[in-house]
Amino acid sequence: MAKINSNYNKLKTNYLFSDIARKISEYKLAFPEKEIIRMGIGDVTLPLVQPVVDALVKASTEMGNKATFRGYGDEQGYAFLQEVIKEYYEENCKVRLSTNEIFISDGAKSDIANFTELFSNDNTIIIPDPVYPVYLDSNLMFGRKILFINGNEENGFLPLPDKNTKGDIVYLCSPNNPTGAVYNYAELQTWVEFALNNNMIIFFDSAYEAFVSDKGLPRSIYEIEGANKCAVEFCSLSKTAGFTGTRCGYTIVPEDIIIDDNYSLNKMWLRRQTTKFNGTSYIVQRGAEAVFSKEGIAACKENIKYYMNNAKIIAKTLEESNVWFTGGINSPYIWLKCGMDSWEFFDLLLKKAQIVGTPGSGFGKCGEGFFRLTSFNTRENTVEAMRRFKEFLREL
Amino acid sequence: MAKINSNYNKLKTNYLFSDIARKISEYKLAFPEKEIIRMGIGDVTLPLVQPVVDALVKASTEMGNKATFRGYGDEQGYAFLQEVIKEYYEENCKVRLSTNEIFISDGAKSDIANFTELFSNDNTIIIPDPVYPVYLDSNLMFGRKILFINGNEENGFLPLPDKNTKGDIVYLCSPNNPTGAVYNYAELQTWVEFALNNNMIIFFDSAYEAFVSDKGLPRSIYEIEGANKCAVEFCSLSKTAGFTGTRCGYTIVPEDIIIDDNYSLNKMWLRRQTTKFNGTSYIVQRGAEAVFSKEGIAACKENIKYYMNNAKIIAKTLEESNVWFTGGINSPYIWLKCGMDSWEFFDLLLKKAQIVGTPGSGFGKCGEGFFRLTSFNTRENTVEAMRRFKEFLREL
Repeated sequence: MAKINSNYNKLKTNYLFSDIARKISEYKLAFPEKEIIRMGIGDVTLPLVQPVVDALVKASTEMGNKATFRGYGDEQGYAFLQEVIKEYYEENCKVRLSTNEIFISDGAKSDIANFTELFSNDNTIIIPDPVYPVYLDSNLMFGRKILFINGNEENGFLPLPDKNTKGDIVYLCSPNNPTGAVYNYAELQTWVEFALNNNMIIFFDSAYEAFVSDKGLPRSIYEIEGANKCAVEFCSLSKTAGFTGTRCGYTIVPEDIIIDDNYSLNKMWLRRQTTKFNGTSYIVQRGAEAVFSKEGIAACKENIKYYMNNAKIIAKTLEESNVWFTGGINSPYIWLKCGMDSWEFFDLLLKKAQIVGTPGSGFGKCGEGFFRLTSFNTRENTVEAMRRFKEFLREL
Repeated sequence: MAKINSNYNKLKTNYLFSDIARKISEYKLAFPEKEIIRMGIGDVTLPLVQPVVDALVKASTEMGNKATFRGYGDEQGYAFLQEVIKEYYEENCKVRLSTNEIFISDGAKSDIANFTELFSNDNTIIIPDPVYPVYLDSNLMFGRKILFINGNEENGFLPLPDKNTKGDIVYLCSPNNPTGAVYNYAELQTWVEFALNNNMIIFFDSAYEAFVSDKGLPRSIYEIEGANKCAVEFCSLSKTAGFTGTRCGYTIVPEDIIIDDNYSLNKMWLRRQTTKFNGTSYIVQRGAEAVFSKEGIAACKENIKYYMNNAKIIAKTLEESNVWFTGGINSPYIWLKCGMDSWEFFDLLLKKAQIVGTPGSGFGKCGEGFFRLTSFNTRENTVEAMRRFKEFLREL
């Protein structure tokens, strides 16, 4: 008799975004004449840049021609893409990788979730709260123990390890989703040293690295000495180049990570991927290659600048209104202290200013009392939303 | 201290294709003037058909335009693709599905391997031998018990359950890889009844269904009564439409499968995919949609006919030479009895006829004494290879 994985019982259904959608529908029905501005969007809105579109079209055409058709590629990705990612790391943050350490995937979400398979279910997983829900759920599915570490106003939502931080694997996300907070060099160094001293592995989610403009902040965990012995880095073109619907990411698994003097995490991941994955579409990999061309990088930077100018407008409004917040400078997310229950703030903001954001409590209990705004809307809407927001705060 | 998943120790490194590659290189070095014909290819060789290329180009262009750009799609796929697959099932084999039962993926390999996560590690998995290695390895990685059931000359490599078939989940692949053998209605009915009587789940791999031309053979397990209560079907466009490098598959999870009166496998898979997967590329899904258009189906059928004519040439040669074989009629694979050790036959065939095939023992111990040829080469090469093969057998 087939026996089910009963760990699925431990998963909570996350109603966050469906609850938000329901509240918007109800409001629209009651006040059809009001214009709602959505500042809760967690998805890019600008189209793919032209060099990427050209590469996708070219690769699609190649696939229709016997001489240039491609069948199965290596599961870990094409060398042409690994090579440009390797160069990107060198130029971007002076990190030297071997192409064997770069695994191409269909996105960071799959890899972040699947990578845990290389570890026994008998591990304690350290997860910052508030958090991207995949970290938690993908480990609950395997029945692993979870230890939350708290983000809060005091630590700027950048928790550091202390004597109570007892676990085996820790997830770090910087720039953070949902808080937009970014660890500096010293803070990441603290984490890396703690991991090395305690034989811990760091899963570093750098999906938002392209939004870091401050030269004094790390964009890769491998900028920290020793990280090549304890950290796996997950990155994605979703936010860097608007690939949320095109699907391509990459995971760095250093050859230097050896567990129990015997297990190469790099070789284990290669074994996992060659067995359970068949590679990312050739067409998409050619599109991804174009992201890293001179023209591609320049065009993607323009798009990021557009979002970041929106973020600046939001951040300026909050500063002028004396609202405490994180993010908005090196991240498309702004995480603000709303001074009341997150959902109460959501309801008020919708009712009084017709602005939709995301209640912080939806990302974990430490998110209660906070609220997320994003910069993925248009300039015009962002400006209008902030005009309304200022007025809303004055009348609060 | 991070603890590794020690089940990885149980995995054997499969050297099959690297051993073959090495032997070819050595032979080429020794006899550079000889022309080798590769009949071991397990990958398609014809390019994508024009309607698919047109759809890929159109979708790529859409992604560069603000008005038609797409960000995140539903993890289970776009409705436009689910709809045409639903219609394909109705027209192809009179099977009625709900679109909620159709999950789009980046290929059958990922889904076949990942689907096991919904089940406890405390299950016994029944796997036919010889076998596609993913079934075995993806279960060994979770430490599950394996029961092999033997394919052989007597059962035509189509094993059926008997009183010793004690397990919880069974993998069936029909048309089979590597043997090309196809279960008929009565045989699949036997499996379905056995599964229902024993609360077993069938994982049905139908990746080669498009190669079935015989109207008297099932192309989907759901043509069998009761299968909607016990079988999950994995299919792919890899061989149907030459998508091995483009990457798109689909998995059918019937809403009627309820385990322990409580667990809907359909809802569990939706939970798994929404948590650990971010959907297949929009561009690829548009290409896949075009496969199922009238023009797409007609063009793909032409390609399959081309491969199947190659298969016929191989089958005819074997019949004329009185060699026992399976496949080649409703499958691109031909599995022949070589009358000696599989690797010995490989070496002889390379040396005497400069033909490369795949030793059956590489697919499991029951494959010993057998040999796989495929129809994915050109017409010209297939004809020449069979001319040589006939001569080779005469001189053996």
